[in-house]
Amino acid sequence: MAHNTVPAAEALLDQYLPVLDHGFVRLVDYLGGDARIVQAARVSYGEGTKSVREDKALINYLYRNLHTSPFEQVILTFHCKLPIFVARQWIRHRTARLNELSGRYSVMGDEFYLPDLGRVQSQSTENKQASGDSLPPDTARKVLAALKIEQGHAYSHYRELIGQGVARELARINLPLSLYTEWYWQIDLHNLFHFLRLRLDAHAQYEIRQYAQALGRCAQAVAPLAYEAFEEHGLYGARLSRSELKLLRRLLAAAGIDQDTDLSPYSKLPRRRLGEFSAKLWPAAVEPAKPEIRPVDRGEIDSAE
Amino acid sequence: MAHNTVPAAEALLDQYLPVLDHGFVRLVDYLGGDARIVQAARVSYGEGTKSVREDKALINYLYRNLHTSPFEQVILTFHCKLPIFVARQWIRHRTARLNELSGRYSVMGDEFYLPDLGRVQSQSTENKQASGDSLPPDTARKVLAALKIEQGHAYSHYRELIGQGVARELARINLPLSLYTEWYWQIDLHNLFHFLRLRLDAHAQYEIRQYAQALGRCAQAVAPLAYEAFEEHGLYGARLSRSELKLLRRLLAAAGIDQDTDLSPYSKLPRRRLGEFSAKLWPAAVEPAKPEIRPVDRGEIDSAE
Amino acid sequence: MAHNTVPAAEALLDQYLPVLDHGFVRLVDYLGGDARIVQAARVSYGEGTKSVREDKALINYLYRNLHTSPFEQVILTFHCKLPIFVARQWIRHRTARLNELSGRYSVMGDEFYLPDLGRVQSQSTENKQASGDSLPPDTARKVLAALKIEQGHAYSHYRELIGQGVARELARINLPLSLYTEWYWQIDLHNLFHFLRLRLDAHAQYEIRQYAQALGRCAQAVAPLAYEAFEEHGLYGARLSRSELKLLRRLLAAAGIDQDTDLSPYSKLPRRRLGEFSAKLWPAAVEPAKPEIRPVDRGEIDSAE
Amino acid sequence: MAHNTVPAAEALLDQYLPVLDHGFVRLVDYLGGDARIVQAARVSYGEGTKSVREDKALINYLYRNLHTSPFEQVILTFHCKLPIFVARQWIRHRTARLNELSGRYSVMGDEFYLPDLGRVQSQSTENKQASGDSLPPDTARKVLAALKIEQGHAYSHYRELIGQGVARELARINLPLSLYTEWYWQIDLHNLFHFLRLRLDAHAQYEIRQYAQALGRCAQAVAPLAYEAFEEHGLYGARLSRSELKLLRRLLAAAGIDQDTDLSPYSKLPRRRLGEFSAKLWPAAVEPAKPEIRPVDRGEIDSAE
Repeated sequence: MAHNTVPAAEALLDQYLPVLDHGFVRLVDYLGGDARIVQAARVSYGEGTKSVREDKALINYLYRNLHTSPFEQVILTFHCKLPIFVARQWIRHRTARLNELSGRYSVMGDEFYLPDLGRVQSQSTENKQASGDSLPPDTARKVLAALKIEQGHAYSHYRELIGQGVARELARINLPLSLYTEWYWQIDLHNLFHFLRLRLDAHAQYEIRQYAQALGRCAQAVAPLAYEAFEEHGLYGARLSRSELKLLRRLLAAAGIDQDTDLSPYSKLPRRRLGEFSAKLWPAAVEPAKPEIRPVDRGEIDSAE
Repeated sequence: MAHNTVPAAEALLDQYLPVLDHGFVRLVDYLGGDARIVQAARVSYGEGTKSVREDKALINYLYRNLHTSPFEQVILTFHCKLPIFVARQWIRHRTARLNELSGRYSVMGDEFYLPDLGRVQSQSTENKQASGDSLPPDTARKVLAALKIEQGHAYSHYRELIGQGVARELARINLPLSLYTEWYWQIDLHNLFHFLRLRLDAHAQYEIRQYAQALGRCAQAVAPLAYEAFEEHGLYGARLSRSELKLLRRLLAAAGIDQDTDLSPYSKLPRRRLGEFSAKLWPAAVEPAKPEIRPVDRGEIDSAE
Repeated sequence: MAHNTVPAAEALLDQYLPVLDHGFVRLVDYLGGDARIVQAARVSYGEGTKSVREDKALINYLYRNLHTSPFEQVILTFHCKLPIFVARQWIRHRTARLNELSGRYSVMGDEFYLPDLGRVQSQSTENKQASGDSLPPDTARKVLAALKIEQGHAYSHYRELIGQGVARELARINLPLSLYTEWYWQIDLHNLFHFLRLRLDAHAQYEIRQYAQALGRCAQAVAPLAYEAFEEHGLYGARLSRSELKLLRRLLAAAGIDQDTDLSPYSKLPRRRLGEFSAKLWPAAVEPAKPEIRPVDRGEIDSAE
Repeated sequence: MAHNTVPAAEALLDQYLPVLDHGFVRLVDYLGGDARIVQAARVSYGEGTKSVREDKALINYLYRNLHTSPFEQVILTFHCKLPIFVARQWIRHRTARLNELSGRYSVMGDEFYLPDLGRVQSQSTENKQASGDSLPPDTARKVLAALKIEQGHAYSHYRELIGQGVARELARINLPLSLYTEWYWQIDLHNLFHFLRLRLDAHAQYEIRQYAQALGRCAQAVAPLAYEAFEEHGLYGARLSRSELKLLRRLLAAAGIDQDTDLSPYSKLPRRRLGEFSAKLWPAAVEPAKPEIRPVDRGEIDSAE
């Protein structure tokens, strides 16, 4: 057997997916795919179960039961160009491996992020960290013009300092966060899904969401079945709290629905999945019994018989 | 300000919480607590919002919105004694820091795990990795007797080899997985919650669940508000998939309930939380628009205006 | 036993160590110290060896033999204020836990890094990433004046955009990398030593070296014996390559010194350490024998007897 | 550009490298190689320096200057079969991604590690964790016979319990540490080098050293230039402490050698490397000046001008 290659992913290799005004995401290489996830999972199950499950069902099963380790066996390497303020949010995901363009080694290029007109939005009044409505076009145009002029001045000043012989590492300190940088970024599929779940969310800043879209497209090409499971259970699923489950039970009771209701008329989900659904809503024991743990001396433990 | 100390945690320090027949969990030390979580979160919010939110609400907000980093600011150090087969499951959690008793340095002690009578269970017929019903007491007693004899023989043979001068690192290779080992184990609260969610689950092996109970008790002492949020949203909550949410919407529609229904008669949750609940069940846009991303040459990007 | 507290560290808690023109490092809290390192190491050695070694010798032994895990049992929590370009170098150390001030939540303050006159240096001609000599005071003064004016303009413009109602997350994109930010940063001692080794090095940028000095002072207060071992073997030691060791053997041979020479007249190191020194310079076998590994079919392995 | 493939590595794919009596290492797949390391490093240097350095020199430079991140861009996936006591040492390396055969899901096979005759060694008298001389063949033969009988009994008993219907997760608790298990193990090249440095060392247990040899052979096939740099600077190099460097300076001074000596007659190393060697032995400033850092109030910092 040679490498695990996936035609849809091969077709993407070395293509530039444009993001924002000057940025991009490029899939440089990948390791594994759906087939590798299945292989790795089957190591855990030993020889005997090899032919029993079908790949898609197995991958869905792994994902929805939090058996995350087989998804770590798939790796994607990206080359990205992105504004520094996006890079600063992105790098909070610590499980990736990274090489970034260095402003100490190289003179930075003259490329800055300037939003689209519609993206010039007001501060949200509901969410302290979000944007609200677009500003009126006239105001927005003025905002953009001012941002652009400022970027031009900052870059001219930077080149002036470089021209005067100031060390690159110092000349760059007033460059703005809208400057584009580049990096190689490599991450496993489990952690990429985690990244996507947070960064495709409506609460993520607009700019990083655009990058997440492009990364997601690559992930889908490399491991389409895994991506489908991620969409079903991660991206478009929801975490409900104990109180919310209780509320749901009340609402359903009002409609005469309880754990004994036959749910098959309401859904095409297979019987096993319907059973799992019931078990989530009406858990057998609401809480694991927590026996009172009495602290003792170590002597009592070591001499226990 | 001195260390962040928590009275309930201080009371636990250096107590031995017995687990299984010879094992224990001991809270050796801890760093931070609920107050530290709040401090760390407020660094993100800057000065202005310092007095606005109340701690409990903030911690609950952080937990349910996956703002996990402030929970990493709390650290717990444990000393544990546990059978090797439990240690092998436990160590799969890679984010902890660990020092274990070494069978190369030291002669191992004569302590093995022997289950309780009721724990001698049959193979589950429903779940390939689980236990089923208890075996009849007579059979169980014979099983236990045989296990105990075997442990005795294995240990005698081990001491014999040591006595013959065989190197410790070699003499130990036939020691059984039921042998007790010890370790110092240190982990942050976010990752401990993840450990607990997996290891308090009914699908986890009985033996590691007992340890998880003891660890959970310590976590609760160190950061009671965070633990409450974990119970509400993590431990006793549920992840529903896109299909399950769709099924729920159908079931609720059958009862005449939709996103416009006033839910307050059914629940004491504050209005904001009820709004979040509705938004989970009836998300505004089912999916973020995925614009077709057309691959281009890098040249097109770099010269974009 | 209560918490592991260290008087010198207690004295530092909540003090602000000033760094650069507006920055600081503050030790917020710590977990463990030299005593914890010793405890954790002794878990590995079991009961028997408890009283044999003296703490200082044990810590030195652990450090020089790459037994790094006991050093991970010590944790330090810092509160820092630092320019963004420093934060971007700092965050490459992924093993730390972090909460940073967010420009999405809060309006950023009006504080920027402006170097000292002597720090206005030319680009190094020898090292592509470093600074060379200070520029003439007149030039330097002009450079500083221009940087300061630019920072003022950038901040005014930022406040103007905020005033016009532009979302904070967008208004900030032209803020320069010299802007100060703040964070809580927590790391274990082993990884802090790694950070210090790289960031106290003459090749690290001047500004981050100043922060490393302050962090190092805190580490020394929390675990003085471990810090001493770090200085001896890490910070002020050197890695020599195979070729360099060969060169050294030739140089020493020219002086009639070989593995049989009595080194004690030249050094006060204990005999054991002198033996280790000889073993590094004149390793017993230069290379472990690498037996030819012949690939085989799995069948041959599984049926091996 | 397609995947980065390396002929020597392709030839190894899916071959079984036998280790110990029933174990193996198999290279399942890999991502990147020497070329990827160079690409990733050059992202940091930007466009300008692309053609200047030759790959081998760049990789050597990166390795000896601790620029480790480009080595993380290369990933290797292994399938291994190994005794459990080896697995327990191996898994301490936490940066790898892992899927192991589960004794809860599957009935374990009847394969145990039995050492070679010469490996039956006595406890070292010099090193508390090591083996000493081989035992006399007669004694060794008896030891091996006894170990083998015990393994047979343990396995029979295990199958008996399985036959009686005892749950697999419980029936296995007395299986010995010499039992073989299997796993998929994936790691980046930087962390693999770290693994190899510790596990090829004479202080590592004999059995894991055999696996390290096989892993090393695969690493060498995937990235031969990086492996060469690892051998030169990591594996066969040495860390010298401050005291050892001082001792060396004294020894060399006795031979009339100091920082001004022309070293080129003694070594074929290029002039630049000889300069680096001198700088290690006779560092410019023995220690970075540690200015006294005076703690202050935060007020003093925030109002600093």
